[in-house]
Amino acid sequence: MPLTLQDCRSLDAQDPLAPLRRLFRMPPGVIYLDGNSLGPLPAATAERLQAVVQQEWGEGLIRSWNSAGWFLQPQALGRRIAALIGAGEDEVVATDTTSVNLFKVLSAAMASVSARDPKRRRLVSERSNFPTDLYIAQSLCEQHGWTLDLVPEANALAAALGPDTGILMLTHVNYRTGAMHDMAAVTAAAHAAGAVCVWDLAHSAGAVPLDLRSANADYAVGCGYKYLNGGPGAPAFVWVHARHASTFKQPLAGWWGHAAPFAFTPDYQPAPGIDRYLCGTQSVLALAALDCGLATLEAAQTQGGMQALRRKSLALTDTFMTLVEERCSGHELQIVTPRDHAQRGSQVSLTRASGAHAIVQALIARQVIGDFRAGDAAAGEPDILRFGFTPLYLGFEDAWHAAEHLRQVLESGEWQQARFQQQHAVT
Amino acid sequence: MPLTLQDCRSLDAQDPLAPLRRLFRMPPGVIYLDGNSLGPLPAATAERLQAVVQQEWGEGLIRSWNSAGWFLQPQALGRRIAALIGAGEDEVVATDTTSVNLFKVLSAAMASVSARDPKRRRLVSERSNFPTDLYIAQSLCEQHGWTLDLVPEANALAAALGPDTGILMLTHVNYRTGAMHDMAAVTAAAHAAGAVCVWDLAHSAGAVPLDLRSANADYAVGCGYKYLNGGPGAPAFVWVHARHASTFKQPLAGWWGHAAPFAFTPDYQPAPGIDRYLCGTQSVLALAALDCGLATLEAAQTQGGMQALRRKSLALTDTFMTLVEERCSGHELQIVTPRDHAQRGSQVSLTRASGAHAIVQALIARQVIGDFRAGDAAAGEPDILRFGFTPLYLGFEDAWHAAEHLRQVLESGEWQQARFQQQHAVT
Repeated sequence: MPLTLQDCRSLDAQDPLAPLRRLFRMPPGVIYLDGNSLGPLPAATAERLQAVVQQEWGEGLIRSWNSAGWFLQPQALGRRIAALIGAGEDEVVATDTTSVNLFKVLSAAMASVSARDPKRRRLVSERSNFPTDLYIAQSLCEQHGWTLDLVPEANALAAALGPDTGILMLTHVNYRTGAMHDMAAVTAAAHAAGAVCVWDLAHSAGAVPLDLRSANADYAVGCGYKYLNGGPGAPAFVWVHARHASTFKQPLAGWWGHAAPFAFTPDYQPAPGIDRYLCGTQSVLALAALDCGLATLEAAQTQGGMQALRRKSLALTDTFMTLVEERCSGHELQIVTPRDHAQRGSQVSLTRASGAHAIVQALIARQVIGDFRAGDAAAGEPDILRFGFTPLYLGFEDAWHAAEHLRQVLESGEWQQARFQQQHAVT
Repeated sequence: MPLTLQDCRSLDAQDPLAPLRRLFRMPPGVIYLDGNSLGPLPAATAERLQAVVQQEWGEGLIRSWNSAGWFLQPQALGRRIAALIGAGEDEVVATDTTSVNLFKVLSAAMASVSARDPKRRRLVSERSNFPTDLYIAQSLCEQHGWTLDLVPEANALAAALGPDTGILMLTHVNYRTGAMHDMAAVTAAAHAAGAVCVWDLAHSAGAVPLDLRSANADYAVGCGYKYLNGGPGAPAFVWVHARHASTFKQPLAGWWGHAAPFAFTPDYQPAPGIDRYLCGTQSVLALAALDCGLATLEAAQTQGGMQALRRKSLALTDTFMTLVEERCSGHELQIVTPRDHAQRGSQVSLTRASGAHAIVQALIARQVIGDFRAGDAAAGEPDILRFGFTPLYLGFEDAWHAAEHLRQVLESGEWQQARFQQQHAVT
C-alpha cells in the first residue's frame, strides 16, 4: 500500500526527536534539505554571539583571552566533537578549515609512512572524493614525489592497495551519492596492505554514529558547518590517533601549536598530542557559533543521541526514496544513493539524464531547498539532485511535501521555463 | 615647560579625529592601550552580526552564498585592505590566519627563488621577530633544506644579506619595541642582494601609512584583529606582488583557490592572481566583523585618512613618552621605542630591570590596559611594558591619565603587592 500524507503525519506524531526542531530558527514555509551543505541557524546562536561580542569582546577586551576561556576554545570544542565521532576526549581540536587540516594530517602521514618505508609513495583515493581533498592531496604528492592514484569506483579500492601504497584517503560519506564506506573494514584493508587511513568526516560527523577508535583509524578531519550547524564557514576539526599524534610534526607550525606558546621563544617546539595541529589564532566568534551548533546535537543525548538520530535519519531517507518511487515515477529519475542502510549517510541523491539543475532551481523557487552537483561529463558522472535529511529539524511530513513538490515540478514541466534553465557560475 | 593635563585637553579639543571615538563601544573608565593586540569593539559590529546571523544565515540559508555575496567576501574585503596598505585593488584577499598565510607566501617565495637560483637557500630574519613567523619559517626551512638565519639586531640585517640569501622576512613594526623598518630601503637592499622581501604587517596595517607598491615589496601578510578592529581571531590577509602572483603555486591548494571552484573537477588548477592564495571555506561571521572593523578606518578618510591618523598617532606617542620622562622619572623606566618618527609604529614600549609584569598588572587593575611581553633572558632581551596608542579612539587626555596611573603605581609601590606579582601561564 503506497505511503500517504497521513502515514507521514503518524510517523511524526510518534517521533520522540520531533521537539528538537524547536532548537532551530527555520524560516516559515521552507523545507530545508541542504543541511549537508550548510546547517540552519540554531535558536541559541544569535544571543550567544551578542554576549560574546558585547560582553566578552566589548567589555572584556584583551582580558577575555583568559577570563572568557577564548584561548582554550579549540580544545574545549574538540572534546565535544570527540564524543560525537568516537575519539578520545583530548584527541580533537576545532580549528582552521577542512582543507588546511587535511594538509596537516596528510603531511604528517606522509612523513610517518616515509620514515617507516620510503618506497611507499602512492596515495589512493576515489575520483569522486570531494575536490578540495583531491587538490590538497595532489599538491602534497607533487611536493613529496608521491603518486596520486584515483580509483573510478569505490569497489576498485581494495585492488588498488599494494606494497607501494602509503595512504588511503577517503571521505566517509560521498558528497555526491551519499554512499558510505564501512570505516572499520576499509581501515583494516588499508592496514593489511601496510598503508595508513585518512578519513574526511564532512558528511558523517553529526550525521551518522562514528567510532574512530574502534575502527582503528589513523587520521581524520571534518567540517563544522554541515551537520554540526556551526554557521557558514565554521571552523573545521582534526583528529589524530594517539599512536601518531606526538610522533610527527605537521608543517603549519604556528604559535598555537607550540609546547609553550606564551614563552615566545624563537625556536618551535611542538606541543604534545593533538595541540600541535593548531597553528594560528582562531576566530572567537566563529568558535562560539560552532559551540551553539554542537549543543543542538548534544540536546539529543537524552533521546538516545547519535543512535536515535541515525534511526530517524534512515527512516526519513527510506521514506523519501519510497515516495520518489511511488509518486514521481515516469519522469526518468534514478536513485543513486544505496538502499542498504549500512551503505548510506543522511542524504538521498537522484539523477536524471537532463534537467537536474533546472529541477533543483524549480524546487528552490517552491521553497524546497536541495542542491545540484554537476557531474564531470568526461568521467561519465551524472548530474546530481541532492537532498539532505537531517533528523534534528526535519520530519516525515517534510519528506512527503518535498516529494510532492518534486512530482509537481516534473508533471507541470515548470522546470523547463527559461528562468530555471540558467546555469550559475556560483551555486 | 612640562606638559599639563590642560595641555592634553587642549590638544583633544583641537583634534579633528576625536569624534571617531564614537565609532567604538569602549567600556566606561577603561583606558585601552592594547588595541595593538586586540582592537576594541566597533559600534556597528553587533548589529551587523545580528543581520548576518538572523537574515543572511537564518532566513537565506545556503542561498546567501550567492545572494548575500558570502563567496566573494575575501576579495571584497581584500580590496578595502589594499587601499590601506598601498596594494593594487585586486591584489589582496582576507582569509585564514597570519601564520597560514605566511606559510603560503614563504612556500611560493622559496619556489620562486629556487627556480631562479637554487644556491640561494638562506632565509634571513630578526631574532625578535614575532615567534609564529619564525616558527613557520623554521618549518619550511627544515622541509626545503634552507637555513634560517636570525640576526640579533636590526642594524645587522644589511651585513647578513649575501649571495646565498633567498628571502628576507621581517615584521615591519616590531611587536616588542615598536621599532619600524624603512620598508622601501630594506626592500631595495634585499633586492640588491638578490633576495625577495616578505613583510608581516601585523603592527602596521591600520597603524601607519603603507605603500607596498612604491616600496616594491614582494609578499606581505597581516592581521585583522589588531589595528583593523576585526574582532578576536579575525581573518588575516595576504598580498603578493603581481610579478609573482600568477607565477608560483602555494601548496595549500584548496577549492577556494581553484580557477573554477564550482566545476568540481578532480584536477587542481590555481586561479590567476591573488585568488590562488585562498584555500578552504572561510567564516562568514568572522569576515562580517572584519568588514565593520575596516569601516572604522575608512571613516577617517574624510579627515585625511591614514596620513591624519599617523600624525595623531605620533603626537600621542610623543606625548606619552614626554609624560613618562617628565612625570615617572626616578623609577628606572627606560623607553625602548625609537624617538625618531620615521623609526616607530604606533606603540610605546618601556623596560625596567624588574617588575615589568607586576606593573602592567597593577595598571590593568586601575583599568589602564596595556600589556606585558616577556623578554628571552637567554638572548639578553628585557621584559617589555607595552602601550599601544590608536588614534581612532584614544586622546591626549588618555595619554595623560595613563602616565599618571603609571606614576602612581610606581610611587605607591602597589605593584609590589603579592597579587600583582603572580605570573600567569596565559597572558
